[in-house]
Parts: sequence; structure tokens; C-alpha cells
Amino acid sequence: MTRYRDLGLTIGQLPPGPLNAITDIAGVRVGTVTLIEGEGPLVVGQGPIRTGVTVVVPHDTIGESPVFAGCHSLNGNGEMTGLEWVRESGQLTTPIAITNTHSVGIVRDALVYADMATRSPSVSYWSLPVVAETYDGGLNDINGMHVTAAHLHQALAVAATGTLPEGNVGGGTGMVCHEFKGGTGTASRIVNGWRVGALVQANYGDRERLTIDGVPVGRELTRTAIPSAWDEEDAIARRGAGSIIVILATDAPILPHQLTRLAQRAGLGIARMGGSGAHSSGDIFLAFSTANVGAMHSYKAEASTDAFSVTMLPDEAMSDLFWGAIESTEEAICNALIAAETMTGRDGITAHALPHDALVEVMTRYGRGPSLG
Amino acid sequence: MTRYRDLGLTIGQLPPGPLNAITDIAGVRVGTVTLIEGEGPLVVGQGPIRTGVTVVVPHDTIGESPVFAGCHSLNGNGEMTGLEWVRESGQLTTPIAITNTHSVGIVRDALVYADMATRSPSVSYWSLPVVAETYDGGLNDINGMHVTAAHLHQALAVAATGTLPEGNVGGGTGMVCHEFKGGTGTASRIVNGWRVGALVQANYGDRERLTIDGVPVGRELTRTAIPSAWDEEDAIARRGAGSIIVILATDAPILPHQLTRLAQRAGLGIARMGGSGAHSSGDIFLAFSTANVGAMHSYKAEASTDAFSVTMLPDEAMSDLFWGAIESTEEAICNALIAAETMTGRDGITAHALPHDALVEVMTRYGRGPSLG
Amino acid sequence: MTRYRDLGLTIGQLPPGPLNAITDIAGVRVGTVTLIEGEGPLVVGQGPIRTGVTVVVPHDTIGESPVFAGCHSLNGNGEMTGLEWVRESGQLTTPIAITNTHSVGIVRDALVYADMATRSPSVSYWSLPVVAETYDGGLNDINGMHVTAAHLHQALAVAATGTLPEGNVGGGTGMVCHEFKGGTGTASRIVNGWRVGALVQANYGDRERLTIDGVPVGRELTRTAIPSAWDEEDAIARRGAGSIIVILATDAPILPHQLTRLAQRAGLGIARMGGSGAHSSGDIFLAFSTANVGAMHSYKAEASTDAFSVTMLPDEAMSDLFWGAIESTEEAICNALIAAETMTGRDGITAHALPHDALVEVMTRYGRGPSLG
Amino acid sequence: MTRYRDLGLTIGQLPPGPLNAITDIAGVRVGTVTLIEGEGPLVVGQGPIRTGVTVVVPHDTIGESPVFAGCHSLNGNGEMTGLEWVRESGQLTTPIAITNTHSVGIVRDALVYADMATRSPSVSYWSLPVVAETYDGGLNDINGMHVTAAHLHQALAVAATGTLPEGNVGGGTGMVCHEFKGGTGTASRIVNGWRVGALVQANYGDRERLTIDGVPVGRELTRTAIPSAWDEEDAIARRGAGSIIVILATDAPILPHQLTRLAQRAGLGIARMGGSGAHSSGDIFLAFSTANVGAMHSYKAEASTDAFSVTMLPDEAMSDLFWGAIESTEEAICNALIAAETMTGRDGITAHALPHDALVEVMTRYGRGPSLG
Repeated sequence: MTRYRDLGLTIGQLPPGPLNAITDIAGVRVGTVTLIEGEGPLVVGQGPIRTGVTVVVPHDTIGESPVFAGCHSLNGNGEMTGLEWVRESGQLTTPIAITNTHSVGIVRDALVYADMATRSPSVSYWSLPVVAETYDGGLNDINGMHVTAAHLHQALAVAATGTLPEGNVGGGTGMVCHEFKGGTGTASRIVNGWRVGALVQANYGDRERLTIDGVPVGRELTRTAIPSAWDEEDAIARRGAGSIIVILATDAPILPHQLTRLAQRAGLGIARMGGSGAHSSGDIFLAFSTANVGAMHSYKAEASTDAFSVTMLPDEAMSDLFWGAIESTEEAICNALIAAETMTGRDGITAHALPHDALVEVMTRYGRGPSLG
Repeated sequence: MTRYRDLGLTIGQLPPGPLNAITDIAGVRVGTVTLIEGEGPLVVGQGPIRTGVTVVVPHDTIGESPVFAGCHSLNGNGEMTGLEWVRESGQLTTPIAITNTHSVGIVRDALVYADMATRSPSVSYWSLPVVAETYDGGLNDINGMHVTAAHLHQALAVAATGTLPEGNVGGGTGMVCHEFKGGTGTASRIVNGWRVGALVQANYGDRERLTIDGVPVGRELTRTAIPSAWDEEDAIARRGAGSIIVILATDAPILPHQLTRLAQRAGLGIARMGGSGAHSSGDIFLAFSTANVGAMHSYKAEASTDAFSVTMLPDEAMSDLFWGAIESTEEAICNALIAAETMTGRDGITAHALPHDALVEVMTRYGRGPSLG
Repeated sequence: MTRYRDLGLTIGQLPPGPLNAITDIAGVRVGTVTLIEGEGPLVVGQGPIRTGVTVVVPHDTIGESPVFAGCHSLNGNGEMTGLEWVRESGQLTTPIAITNTHSVGIVRDALVYADMATRSPSVSYWSLPVVAETYDGGLNDINGMHVTAAHLHQALAVAATGTLPEGNVGGGTGMVCHEFKGGTGTASRIVNGWRVGALVQANYGDRERLTIDGVPVGRELTRTAIPSAWDEEDAIARRGAGSIIVILATDAPILPHQLTRLAQRAGLGIARMGGSGAHSSGDIFLAFSTANVGAMHSYKAEASTDAFSVTMLPDEAMSDLFWGAIESTEEAICNALIAAETMTGRDGITAHALPHDALVEVMTRYGRGPSLG
Repeated sequence: MTRYRDLGLTIGQLPPGPLNAITDIAGVRVGTVTLIEGEGPLVVGQGPIRTGVTVVVPHDTIGESPVFAGCHSLNGNGEMTGLEWVRESGQLTTPIAITNTHSVGIVRDALVYADMATRSPSVSYWSLPVVAETYDGGLNDINGMHVTAAHLHQALAVAATGTLPEGNVGGGTGMVCHEFKGGTGTASRIVNGWRVGALVQANYGDRERLTIDGVPVGRELTRTAIPSAWDEEDAIARRGAGSIIVILATDAPILPHQLTRLAQRAGLGIARMGGSGAHSSGDIFLAFSTANVGAMHSYKAEASTDAFSVTMLPDEAMSDLFWGAIESTEEAICNALIAAETMTGRDGITAHALPHDALVEVMTRYGRGPSLG
């Protein structure tokens, strides 16, 4: 798997974390289950299958100990369940799952029961999990109901710290981004000793609007040079449609209203890449902090109403964190684009990968080539 | 089935529609599937089952022709999927379903496919349906996954105009409201020739806070007089927990931002009944207008970008509509309480119905008895 | 000055604080300046004058040490400056002022400079104060610009802890509420050892919708029995117009997102009194907590970015606080109505006070009379 | 006055309108009053003065006929009065004014009375005008109260269609943007026959983050090359502080919820220029449409409640409008930077203009130089 920095390119001004991934935030685990099967004409229920599930587990005992969270919608043509509860409580109380648009329900219920298994037994148990989606019907038999509860369980089971797979994996398997093959990507930044990381499922954008580190890559690598899946005969899905889900994690001790502010900045990263929150794009962002783990407790029959302490940063610390979120989002999209490999899906439709050599050539021509370092 | 007005009681100052139901709004259909099976100790997966599904279909071709919509959360400890899309587009694009907390996913995906079947064939079809929930684990084997896709299909199939079943039906089957047996209820008001209707799934509230038309019913009909399910040995669920979903429909031609205003008023109706949007209550409201049906079109491969006309009311007309929403919500809750019959559920836990005679006696004592008319 | 409880009446189920006022929250000070001058026909710029300024000072060093805050709009036909900053920062950084609709600007700038005087000298000083309003043009020469910066300074100078004046005082001088004479009112509740207090400037509501503790007072004390100012020849202002500002204070240690939840509950109190957030009513609420004073610091040239601790309550504690906010709002409106005295303003228009004897008679008739205690 | 395109540079992919200004939207008028007086050390109340007022008049009879509007806050460390009313009504009912942070109040009240003069006489007249601000205390005696009601009246009097002054004019007189001299700027785009225009008061941003059309201008034209006002001895104001107000106008017939979406895109334009909505930046945006002028009527004593028609675009048309808003915002900031001239303000602090030649050289070096045309 190649990552953006493997090409010698950089983006942004802040240093990445050691893994340059959302897993740089201690305790965060990510799991992906990738479903690729069959080829040829679409037969609903049979395939071809190009989909999957991604989970982000904030920390090992999230079922018992929620984390502070906030969210933002740049464009709400999408779904992220559980947001009414996130907004009300300022907390994330379950792992997060991301899949395709028409499998949100099955993954959501599976997450309810998986979450239940991690908690103290209680008939009054309830769960309002966070499950997001992007549309992979361009390549995948999205109406074939190929994602099952078992896939969510498997994604949770394999969720791990450390290096992540990127590109055509998990919920990002069948993505198309700026009319190149898109997918799952991640990146991180170190900000005054704190860490901010992003994980994206990138499925948005027009070719001609793609910019990387300010370079108009999309105007150089045109649809003539590298074909767009949307121009194929059976594409149907419209140019610019799609979505991007961004999950931001940080170990900075910030409160729900501060995390809400952070979440909005994911959209600024997308804007710098050439995204606009196009009408039919579900650009929805969630940010959580692992800093106060243990302070809060999930719903229990005998709940305490005693006051307790949490740690927070002054607002003066937010501006730098904002750039951490912006740059992490940008580079996570770059990583999705670079790691993704050309994929042929239903009806022979092909989403071409962003060619690495051509990208390096363009970046160099615009004064942003590989540094000699 | 007895309704509130059958007792000779009234509430509010505006006249109800002919059916005093959300189906007074022309074209609106409601369907319920009620699952009641078994008794005795809870065996997860076996029962006892006390749950169901309710659907509200805004009009017959909602899949092709969206309606304007808006929403409001009084307290977000609940789920109503599809709200990001409602907020962004100002439209409701699918039927609405309401079920129990842990069946939202299966109903949501089933609604995706049911909705698909109503549209022109297209591989780019997508759907972001609205599915809401309240928690029925007090009486029901909520973790038994008893609601299936077939139940959603059946609810859609039986959805009809005209008089509705109320009380222990549909998603409202296993509800508890102000520590009486709750359920599904509906009511409507005529407002300057327009109609406003509410359908509620009422599962919220403390006994001592229940007020009907201002009368402190809950302080008169105490837990000593009529026992509360929450006081039973295996209740576990906590007093005051629960939720209420309110769906408001109107034929008044109002725009999304005006429907958002209307939706907030559902909460004022709840407040007048003695609800507070308690912490663990998911009090989420959706309002839609059938007035501009046909003006907008759902997602299509070749979408027009031409301007078109819609009809709207001046803001001066909103104040009376607000009262229509408030009174409809109040009386819909009353109808849920009056129509609901005492139910014994899992582990023998019993939710007692609000006794009709005792209610009339209290209302009379406080100067709000049956009118001689 | 007579208060609601002086009539032997009660409302709600929670105990009031010792003063039954927002000043039960330690450190909170309130100041009012009342401008009543002239009578007869309106001559813009000359009078008659029936207006004023009210200030709520969260604590003595608010200029140096902000408090957590949140806000909610039930109906935004009004102004409360500074809310963008409250929403973003989760903090209240200045005293609050309330005046008439057309004097918001002069009071706002005066508060900027008054606030400046309390801080360390610095040319980079800035201020985004909170100034709210209701419309008193029914009785007052509102376009005469009678409120000056000096009046704001004076209100700050006289701001005190302890018992407050209510009724025709401060910004509430020229109010009309449910077509009786309205004004400024306050009340408080003790909630699990914490205190919640409300201060209202009550200027909203139709006569026929007024309910007190559930009793339909407005249907009993009709416009025929006690005339409404809106029915007078030169009234012009429309029935039901007006607004209500609610300031909630608490010593409970709750965070900005929790205070936002609390603020929404002020609207539930209004609903129980018979308000609906009518179209032309500016029903805007601000809630702040004095609990973490000293933890945060206002804008300084050399700001720290170090983490620090704050105290918070678990969400399980919120439900009772909600009732504290609801009941305080209700009783504060009652106190405004009871303390206000009949006032004749511009063009001889008279707003009649709610008659105490008649109220007691009605309350008694509906089973809510003075307790024998 | 030099504009960005006068340098041979372009930005974005959509064509500008004939004036490349917000006044390309028919009927929109802009007026500026610029106050520049004195030099040397700051003496509060005397000067030096570097401030002003800008007004945007949506159309000639805005006092009688409101326009649809929406708003968005990227970062709320600023003030824009009247937003509660904009959010509630979906309408803009007055001209917009923009000035310095500590003159919002006087301008707001002056706008109330100016607005009143345009309406039918009525004692029930009220006004909730929109007045925004950015902080000019870096160069201006901001606490000297130099802006008067007369200045607002003058700005309204000179408000005109056609070409606008940019740079050091109106409310933008004392701005600093990316540590260059900032100010007032405007630009427009033609989008499928509709027009979208932006007017900015640009006062935000760090030097090193400035990018123009993707070129890292701020890393090339460093503080060593062109000094930053924030590095001067008496600067006090902090790097990156400041704000940006964006007013978007369009003749596209879009509804309030669609204008709210458009308003959020102003922030994407800022992100592409290198802004992040830094903590102490008030980045607040308002969008209005002139398309349905005459459909709605302002508050009147005898208001109709009859339904009426308005025109709207389908959501499919929004994506292109979004790019119109993004590109207009970007180029308006460029125009502010290019038109602004080096200014020395209080205490001899100097904000240096972005040097035109150096900019062209950098843009050329990065492959975005003047086209040969």
C-alpha cells in the first residue's frame, strides 16, 4: 500500500503523528471488513459486490465510559445515525461504523447488540449507535443487501491499533472521489503536544475541482487523460454526487461545544481539496476526544447525580487544533486517493486510480514536488 | 376503542377536524402492525412480545414527489433517522416509520427497499428514510429482534385514510406514559380553514407531573391509587424515562423554515401535559405539509434545474397554526392514554390504563368535567 | 409590592429558594432603572416615557472571569445581541442588559465601555455583550430615544444581591402580558441542593390563553371584565404580539451544552402559562452557571493554552434541573403579573393589572386556592 | 484603484458578472463612509481614526418588502445583530450595515430610525436590523466612539449601484488580513444565468497560511520580506485574530433553507484562502435573494394571512450556486487585499499592502501567472 508521503509529497504545515493515522490517538482502534466478489453485469442480490464496513472504536470500554463528542453537517444528503443523541448529550456512547447507504440499518442494529454484549447485563439496556454511510452503487450491487450483522461483528473483532489499511477497504471499498478511485484514508497531526487524527470515507467531488496542496490536479489530469467512471455507459450516477464522512479523534481535553467547533473544520479541509458540499453529497463529520475517559458513565439503573471533574483546554488552544483537523482531513483524502487501486465493478464500470507518477509530475511542475531532504 | 372526547371531555380552544386525526389531512395514510405474543418471564428472542410498527405515508406518490418538512428536538435521547437530509433539503422524501429502539435499523433498511419499489427503476436510486423509535423494553422483549422487514411491508400495505386505531397498536404497543399505559394517539385541529394533525407515540413522563387541560391528574390518581409499572420488582427502567415521537401534518402551504417552527410547538403541547423533555427521553418532532405536492421531484438521473412556483402562507398566519400543533399534540397524547388498555408484559410487569371514570371524576372536580352540551 | 405567593397561591412542586428570586444564586446581582415621565398624547422624543433598563450581573468579576452559558430561541422575533459568541464559546463574558427594542444599540455600546472599565487596560480589549429587548411601544414613546448610556451605567451601579423590585420596573416598565399589565418578574427553585433562578421581562400572550397552574384564568377574566390595552382606540399593536426574555441562572456545575438544554426549558414554562411563541414574539432565553467561576479567563494579550479542570454534573442530574427552570419561569411570570400595577401610557392607553382578588377567586373555584397552611 | 484581475490574474472556474461585484445583482446598492483622520499616538476619543461604515441595501423598498435570507457562523467570535430574526423568519427586513466592533450599537439604532423613515407611519413600527462588525483596534482608536448615527445615514444616502470602492473604505478601512492591509472587497459569478455576488470585510488570517488560487503566497511573502503589523511594538492584537464578514447576494430564486446552505459556502471560500475560522475570529455570513421581491410584506397593522406564490429552484441547481458563492468569496478577499493601500494608524503601527509586483511574481513562479490572453 502506497501512501501520499511515500511519493515524497507533503501537505500542510503541522507535523504528522508517528503513524500519520487516527490510531495515533492512544486507544483508538479501527477495523475494516472488505467485500469484493464477482464481476460483470449487475444482478441485484448476486453482485458484483464492492462494499464493506469500517469501525472506529474510541477506546476499549466505550460501552461503559462514553467520550465527549460533537458533530457538524456541511451537507446533509447522507445519514449518520445517533446524532440527535450526540448533540443532546455531548457524548459518543458507542463505536462508530461506516458502510454503504442501504446497509446502515443492518449495521446499526448489529452495533446495538454488539454494544450490549460489552455492558453489564440489564434489561433496561438501550443503545443509539452512530452509523454513517456513503453511496457505492456506482461499482457495487448496493441493493443486494450483501452486508450482514456478521460483517459488523467481524470489523469489531479485527479492530486494532497501529497501521491501518487504506484505499479499497471497509466501507470505502467502492468509493469514487473526484472521479478517481476513492476509498478509506487516514492521517494525523501533532498540535502543541496533542494529537488530532482523521479517518475519511471519501466518495465526493468533480474531477476539475480536485486540488492537492493548492495544485489544480484535476485540471491537469483530465477525464480525457484518465477516464471517469461517471462517463461510462451505465454509470447513471451523476458527476459530483457522492459523499464524504470524516471522523476526527483527538486526545486534547476539549468539551462537547469545542468538539463541535472542531468538527466544522473537517469541511474546510474538504474545501481545500476542491469539495463544495455539493447538493447530493452527504458531508457529515463527527469529532470525539479520548481525554476524559472514565469521567462519565453510560446509562445505568442506579445512576449517580454527584458532580465530578473533567479537564478542558482554554479556547485559545483551539486555533491550532483547528489546523490539525483541517490538515488531517486533507491528507486523509490524499491517502485514500493514493492507496486506492483501479477497480472494475458492476456492469464493467471502472474507477481509475489517481496515477502516482502523473501526480508527482504535476505537483513538481507547480512547485510542490518531492523535497530532496 | 374509547377516545378522549368520548368521555365528554374537551381540551383546547380550536375545533378538531372531522376525524380528529392526522388523517384529516387529505392524502395522509397511517398503517399499524401490532405484535402481541406470549407472557411470563423474559426469554430474549422468545418474548413476551409487546411491540410493532407504525407508518405515516404523507401521500400516495411520496417516492416521486417529496413534501416540505422541518424537525425539532426537544430532547435528543432518541433516534429519528433521515433528519440530516430533512434539515438540508427541507423535504421529506419517504414514508415515516416508528418502532422500538432496537428495531430502527431493520425497519429503516426495509423502508429503503419498499421506497425503491415505488420509484422509476434506476441503479442510482438511493433513499434516506425517516425512522423513529421509543423504548418498549419495560413490557417487551426488545432485544429479541421480533420486528422484521415483513412487518414494515405489512404496515405500508394496510396504511389507510380514515379512522385510526389508537392505544396499544403499532410502534406504540408497549408504551408507558406518565406511568399509565401509553401508546399511539392522534388528533387534529382546523385553523382558519387549514388543518393540522398530530400522531404521537407516547412513552414519556412521571405520574405526578401529568396534567390534562391544566388539571393535576397525576397528583390525584397517584401510584398508590393506580400502580406504576416502574414500581414493579423487575422494572429496572427508570421513572420518567421514555420518549415521545410527534409527527405533525398540515395542508397549510408553509415552507421548510415555517415547518421547523411548527415542529418546535409539539414540545409546548408536551409541556402542557406535564412533560419536560426529561434527560433520558427522546422527544423528537417532524412536521410536513402536503400543500405543494407535485412541485418537487425526487432524485432522478436527468434532473431539471428550472425554477418553479410554490405556495406559502405569510408569517402572520403561523401563530394560529402553532396553536393547532400544540392542541393536536395535547389531545393526541390524551387519546393515546384513553385508548390504551392495561397490559401485562415481560416478567409479569403490568402497565395500568388511565381509568376513565376516575379521570372524569377528577376533571369534574377541577371544573373541567363533561359539558352538558 | 405584592408577589404571587403573598396571595397564598403556589405553583409547581419544587421548593423556592429563600428569596424566590434569581438572586438566590450566590453572587448574582440585578439592577433596574425605571423611566416613567409624562402623560397624554404621544409626541416622539418627548414622551410619555414608560421604559427602562434591567441588568443581570452573573458575578462581580465577570469581566475577568467568564461563566459557562447556553441559549435557546423559541421564537426569534426579537434581539439578544452576543449570542453568536455565547454559542461559539459556551461562555457569557459580560453582564446582561434588557431594555426596549429600539434602545438595544445604545445600551449595547454603553455595556462595551462599562465592561472595558472593569478589565486590565489593553488596547486590544474587545467586548461582545448580551443585550436583549422587548417592545414597549404600546405604552412608551419607544422611538423617542429616552434610554441613554447613563441609564445603563446607573443600572450597573445599583445592581445588588437580595430582594428585587418586580412589575413596572427596569426594561419591564412598559410591558403588557396576556393583555394584563406585565413587567419584570423573578423566582427560583431548590433542586437537589442546587439552585435555579429565572428573571423574565414578560410582554407576550393573548388574554384567552392565560393559564396559571393549569387554571384558565384568561377565559375567566375576559376582556369584558378587565379591558385589554390592545382594544383601545390608538393601540395599533396587535393582540398576541410582544415577547418574553428569560434569563436563567444556576449554581449547578453544568457545561455549555447542558446549559443550552436548560435554556430550552424556559419555553416549556411559557407554554404552561399559555404562551405559544407567537409569530411576532421574540422568546429568547439565556442560561448561565456560576459554578466554575475562576476557571476561565477573558481575552488577554498573553493567554495560556494549558489544560485546567472544571466541575460538571452527570446528565442524570439534568431532569430535575429542567423542572427547576420550568417552574422558575412560570412563577417569575406570575410575579411579573402580580407585582405590575395598572399603567396609563402614551395616548392615554391603559394596561390593567391582573386583579389580585379576582385571581384568587378564580384559582379557588378551580381547586387551586390559597392553602390554609 | 487596482483590482485582482487588473494584475492579469484569475481565480476560480466560473465567469464573473459585468462589474465583478455584489452590485451585479440587480437592485443591490452599496454605500461606504470612510473615516481617516489624525496620526501618531493613540489618545482615546481623539484618534487616530481609521474606521467607517458600509451598507448593503438589498433593494430600494426593503423596508416594505423583505427578501428571503439565511445565515451561517463559521466562528462566532463576532456580532451580527438581527440573526435570531433572520433564522426565524427566513427573511432580511432591513439594509445591512458593517462597522467596527464597538460601534455596532450606535449603527444599529441609527438603522432602526433610518428604516422607520422608509415605512408607512405607524406607532407599532419596530425594526430588528442586521449590523455586523470586525475589530479595527489595531490601527483605529476603536474606543473613541468616532462612528455616529450621521455616518450611517450618509452611507445609506450614498449607497449606489455600479462599481464599488474597495480596500481601505467603509467598515473595512482599518482592516488587517493575513497580516497584510485588508479591507472591503467584492466579486461576483454568473451561474447558469443567475448571479451570485459577495461583499467581504476582511480582517482575518495568519501570514503563513495565505494561499491565493492554491499558491502559498504567505510562505513566499514572509514577515521578513513584508513586515506584519502584529510584530510592531504596540501591536498587542494577536496574530491570527480578526474576523471576516461575508454578505452574499443572488438573484437566483432560492428559499431560506437554500440560502442558509449558500451562506455556509462562504466559509469554504475562506478556507481556500488560508482561513480557518480561528478562535478569536468572528466569521459570520449572510445570504439573501432578490428573486421574490414583492411577494412578502413587512409588519403591518392589518396583515393578510392569504397564501401567495413564490418561485424557487430545485435543489439540483444548488451545487453550481455553491461554487458561485465560494469563488465570489475568494475573489472578494483578493480584491480587498489588492485594493487596500499601506496604512499607518494609531501609535504609528503600519499595515503593509500586499505588493502587486511581488504577488504577480509568486503567482507566475507557481504556474498561475497572468495569462497572455
